Amino acid sequence: MIQITLPDGSVKAFEAGVTPMDVAKSISEGLARQVISAKFNGKTVESVTPLTTDGSLVLYTWNDDEGKKAFWHSSAHVLAQAIEELYPGSKLTIGPPIDNGFYYDVDFGEHTISEKDFKTIEDKMLEIARGKYDFNMRSVSKAEALDVYKDNPYKTELIENLEDGSITFCDHATFTDLCRGGHIPNTGIIKAVKVLSVAGAYWRGDENKPQLTRVYGISFPKQKDLKAYLELLEEAKKRDHRKLGKELELFTFSQKVGQGLPLWLPKGAALRERLENFLKAAQKKAGYEMVVSPHIGQKELYVTSGHYAKYGADSFQPIKTPKEDEEFLLKPMNCPHHCEIYKSSQWSYKDLPKRFAEFGTVYRYEQSGELHGLTRVRGFTQDDAHLFCTPEQLDEEFKNVIDLVLYVFGSLGFENFSTQVSVRDPEHPEKYIGDLDNWEKAEQAIINAAKDKGLDYVIEEGEAAFYGPKLDFMVKDALGRQWQLGTIQVDYNLPERFELTYKGSDNELHRPIMIHRAPFGSMERFVALLLEHTGGNFPIWLMPVQAIILSISEKYEKYSEKVLNLLENNEIRALVDHRSETIGKKIRESEMQKHPYMIIIGEQEEAEGKITVRKHGGEDLGMITVDAFADIIKEDINKTLKSF
Amino acid sequence: MIQITLPDGSVKAFEAGVTPMDVAKSISEGLARQVISAKFNGKTVESVTPLTTDGSLVLYTWNDDEGKKAFWHSSAHVLAQAIEELYPGSKLTIGPPIDNGFYYDVDFGEHTISEKDFKTIEDKMLEIARGKYDFNMRSVSKAEALDVYKDNPYKTELIENLEDGSITFCDHATFTDLCRGGHIPNTGIIKAVKVLSVAGAYWRGDENKPQLTRVYGISFPKQKDLKAYLELLEEAKKRDHRKLGKELELFTFSQKVGQGLPLWLPKGAALRERLENFLKAAQKKAGYEMVVSPHIGQKELYVTSGHYAKYGADSFQPIKTPKEDEEFLLKPMNCPHHCEIYKSSQWSYKDLPKRFAEFGTVYRYEQSGELHGLTRVRGFTQDDAHLFCTPEQLDEEFKNVIDLVLYVFGSLGFENFSTQVSVRDPEHPEKYIGDLDNWEKAEQAIINAAKDKGLDYVIEEGEAAFYGPKLDFMVKDALGRQWQLGTIQVDYNLPERFELTYKGSDNELHRPIMIHRAPFGSMERFVALLLEHTGGNFPIWLMPVQAIILSISEKYEKYSEKVLNLLENNEIRALVDHRSETIGKKIRESEMQKHPYMIIIGEQEEAEGKITVRKHGGEDLGMITVDAFADIIKEDINKTLKSF
Repeated sequence: MIQITLPDGSVKAFEAGVTPMDVAKSISEGLARQVISAKFNGKTVESVTPLTTDGSLVLYTWNDDEGKKAFWHSSAHVLAQAIEELYPGSKLTIGPPIDNGFYYDVDFGEHTISEKDFKTIEDKMLEIARGKYDFNMRSVSKAEALDVYKDNPYKTELIENLEDGSITFCDHATFTDLCRGGHIPNTGIIKAVKVLSVAGAYWRGDENKPQLTRVYGISFPKQKDLKAYLELLEEAKKRDHRKLGKELELFTFSQKVGQGLPLWLPKGAALRERLENFLKAAQKKAGYEMVVSPHIGQKELYVTSGHYAKYGADSFQPIKTPKEDEEFLLKPMNCPHHCEIYKSSQWSYKDLPKRFAEFGTVYRYEQSGELHGLTRVRGFTQDDAHLFCTPEQLDEEFKNVIDLVLYVFGSLGFENFSTQVSVRDPEHPEKYIGDLDNWEKAEQAIINAAKDKGLDYVIEEGEAAFYGPKLDFMVKDALGRQWQLGTIQVDYNLPERFELTYKGSDNELHRPIMIHRAPFGSMERFVALLLEHTGGNFPIWLMPVQAIILSISEKYEKYSEKVLNLLENNEIRALVDHRSETIGKKIRESEMQKHPYMIIIGEQEEAEGKITVRKHGGEDLGMITVDAFADIIKEDINKTLKSF
Repeated sequence: MIQITLPDGSVKAFEAGVTPMDVAKSISEGLARQVISAKFNGKTVESVTPLTTDGSLVLYTWNDDEGKKAFWHSSAHVLAQAIEELYPGSKLTIGPPIDNGFYYDVDFGEHTISEKDFKTIEDKMLEIARGKYDFNMRSVSKAEALDVYKDNPYKTELIENLEDGSITFCDHATFTDLCRGGHIPNTGIIKAVKVLSVAGAYWRGDENKPQLTRVYGISFPKQKDLKAYLELLEEAKKRDHRKLGKELELFTFSQKVGQGLPLWLPKGAALRERLENFLKAAQKKAGYEMVVSPHIGQKELYVTSGHYAKYGADSFQPIKTPKEDEEFLLKPMNCPHHCEIYKSSQWSYKDLPKRFAEFGTVYRYEQSGELHGLTRVRGFTQDDAHLFCTPEQLDEEFKNVIDLVLYVFGSLGFENFSTQVSVRDPEHPEKYIGDLDNWEKAEQAIINAAKDKGLDYVIEEGEAAFYGPKLDFMVKDALGRQWQLGTIQVDYNLPERFELTYKGSDNELHRPIMIHRAPFGSMERFVALLLEHTGGNFPIWLMPVQAIILSISEKYEKYSEKVLNLLENNEIRALVDHRSETIGKKIRESEMQKHPYMIIIGEQEEAEGKITVRKHGGEDLGMITVDAFADIIKEDINKTLKSF
């Protein structure tokens, strides 16, 4: 008999040789139907793997990431089999699961695959799935493995790098693949498949090696899951921030200025400025002070901070001068500059905390292939701040920063977020700098603050930076996709490296603690996320134009201007569409521009001194007074813009 | 007989051999007493040089720059004589006049000169001056000149580089110097001298050559001029923006961040932001749109703009990346980026003018020896904008820009400025790019606009940039020093190089005209100038703290807070000095911080619900209500902040 410990802590005895699926069945038939994969003592096993020792078992279903991974890993086998059957002579290479689905990199030989082949592949995959074939793992010797793949140089290369005795194959139906395991019970639970796209990919990602065809696919245990996913994909395409950014004239890129270096157009710059002003106002209330620092610094500055040693080789290279020995670096972070600002005065404990904030533009080299719209760029503006405080103040400061982050998320409609407290690995205290006692306090300060603020947090041991623990905010956008946004980090390292001090009440010099924080993360990334989250329908307080005035004909221009004036007096951002286009066209374009309210003006409106109001999306608010409309907008603003 | 033409155009006949001084005497004895130096046919002559051909003569007095130059050049001779007599064995090198006075670089041999020697040198100079010695020029052969200076390697080196036949000496009293001429009639008109300082200076500015001692001096025709100058110097020292910037905690520099890269401290960043917001508001009214562009651009961008060919070698060198071939440059100007923004859309003549504004930080390499506070830096933020318009719109646009510049200067207290229109050299049309007809129109547009706006302008032929004419604004600060500030430039070049177009009413593509403009010039330079102009007493609308509240004791803290609230409700920037210092110390520190109003709160004030107000500088406004005080401040603001 062996003892199996389940995640809820319960321990059950089984005969040695019991499989995870047997254990599931012993709990309930319902669970057994759901189980897709399993881990035993932290290692991935098959649902049919016999367990022969005591240990802890976790069973995964489709709802777990591990379950999806096994599902898509197994689907990649099915895709590979379909390709082998449909395109004889194709050479398989690797085919892993990814965040959304899986792919297989294939050398198709003389075949060329395009969208018109997708249906054929899908049909073949479903045919195999319906066969309900089991996945069976077996060990093979290196010699045997090399012999099986003697015509496939890719697999041969993979096998050559493996140790004899550790090589396994997986068989299902008539198909065999080199595989480390982690499958679903049988192909039959794959009920829906979709080949999504094909793309070129170099063998091992090396452009000097042969080019392969990467076939992307996704699969689901239910047809309706696939349907929902494809709808989501469609919606995501519509909300792609690159597409919306163009339609709303927010930003552009120029090959001549350089890849990954956004140019903010007037409407985008205005949006950015409104976001900045919103945060500035809150930061002012919270006792922050703005500073301004240059976008370069001497190399020496980053040698002191440690950034040069860590990132120098992979970064934009040093800037030399024509006549002197100095070397400068594009600033990859604002913190060293802020440390030098702190250092320009001698502070007393009574002066602390000092909270220096800056919308600081930083530059980091990314390979051009990695660049993506505003989310992966080479230059971006952080809504950065560094707080310098005494250990006694850390608790309070941390809570205040959380309040600020929650205010930002709340006012921008991100209700759906989770947090992670990253702390030391308690087994390896030597990996971290700074006094153990301080670490203890800082971790406790973060956890207390998270608890106090009612955050739904998880603690991840070993995830802290070497210089201090942190709290990360992950938000889910309207499409359910998770994004890492704001972060709050405690730092013992830079105060040490820059020899920062304050005079304590004991008249001695002490090291302050530093907090790094950026609620938006960066203006670029945040605007991208906001676009994809809202589809461009920002909270009304943030909209560039809150109401657009459309007159039926030029006759009502004068009254339109009067209405504009009245709205502006009410601090409503409005605009008159002066063009001599049809009202239909003006309304369509206004819809496209996402203006929250359209004000239509014609004979009756002028006669009665009122306006006809139509909401973005079509809802008709009828003919009302300007005052009544102003009240509606103000109420809208109050609903979204939280108080701080 | 020869014909002498005078600056007023009148022509007089004289016997050949007449001297400039004779001509002066023929006009009036009064003028003759004033004449210091002269130019004949554009070349500097002595007042005693016999004139032997027809030509035009200009006579200079102390009030002319040329007159001062001759005065200080001659004074340098006197200084050299004094040094030779006082410190035998000293070797003279060169001694030119400068903007304010003159210097002489001397190899003092075994002597060391310091401040305690200044009086001795001054006395010796005055003794020589009182001798009323004439300055007499004479030609010498190269051999003779080399013989005279056989013990002086510096003069020998100078003479060796001169052509035989072109070498002249100047004698006065017992002293002789190698000299090209341009002296005052005799030493007697030097009535006041001051040795200002000594400094090290390398021979020929080359650090590999011997180090000399540079003796700085100044001299005047009247004792009271020296007194006024020394007072000015004293005042300038007090107003030095580097000193005030430190006292007012506006900015700092860090050796580690890098020379010439200012770090704006909270109070400075807030000042900058208020200036930016002030200009932003005006620009918004004037139809500008803000954009944001990165601080780097591909080298290719500056090859297109022409900046790389022109400045590349002397600039911060290109930034390479670790993995790709791209090269980037720190942006020295914002215009190429704005051209690319313009180019991201196709514009119609109906869309123009487009006015793109950005507070764009640019980086330009300056040798470390040239750096000076905020006026010569390596990174600075321009209040930049580029207007793209049709030729028909140029006139109107230019006028609007002048209005904006005048509004800026007026609101910041620069009443005293002059302007210069820089146009082509009509003799060399080939030096300029762009259509001649357009140039004609653009120059006329600038002149018309300047006239129309009642500017006191001079036209300088040949001073235009090769790409277009411009209008420069020079302001005089409170100490009478002239600074080049804002500039408005017309540009035909960049639209050509970037192939910018708009669709005209004829449906054809045309080139827009570009206007570059920056009313402040740069935030750094402007803040420096503003500090030196105002001594830190900015117009009240710009002051960081408009009123500081000082309570006599802690007992009145609560009432102080109430007053603060009332002031804030009136949109007055106020602050309570909470420290438990004496009221005397608080007042002194408030004076130092230039707070325009101090509000003193004690028992009586609280009892009567009033405040006692004291102006910066000491004026007592007595005990008044908060409302009355708010009215005073508002009136103050209205007096300085012009309407736009």
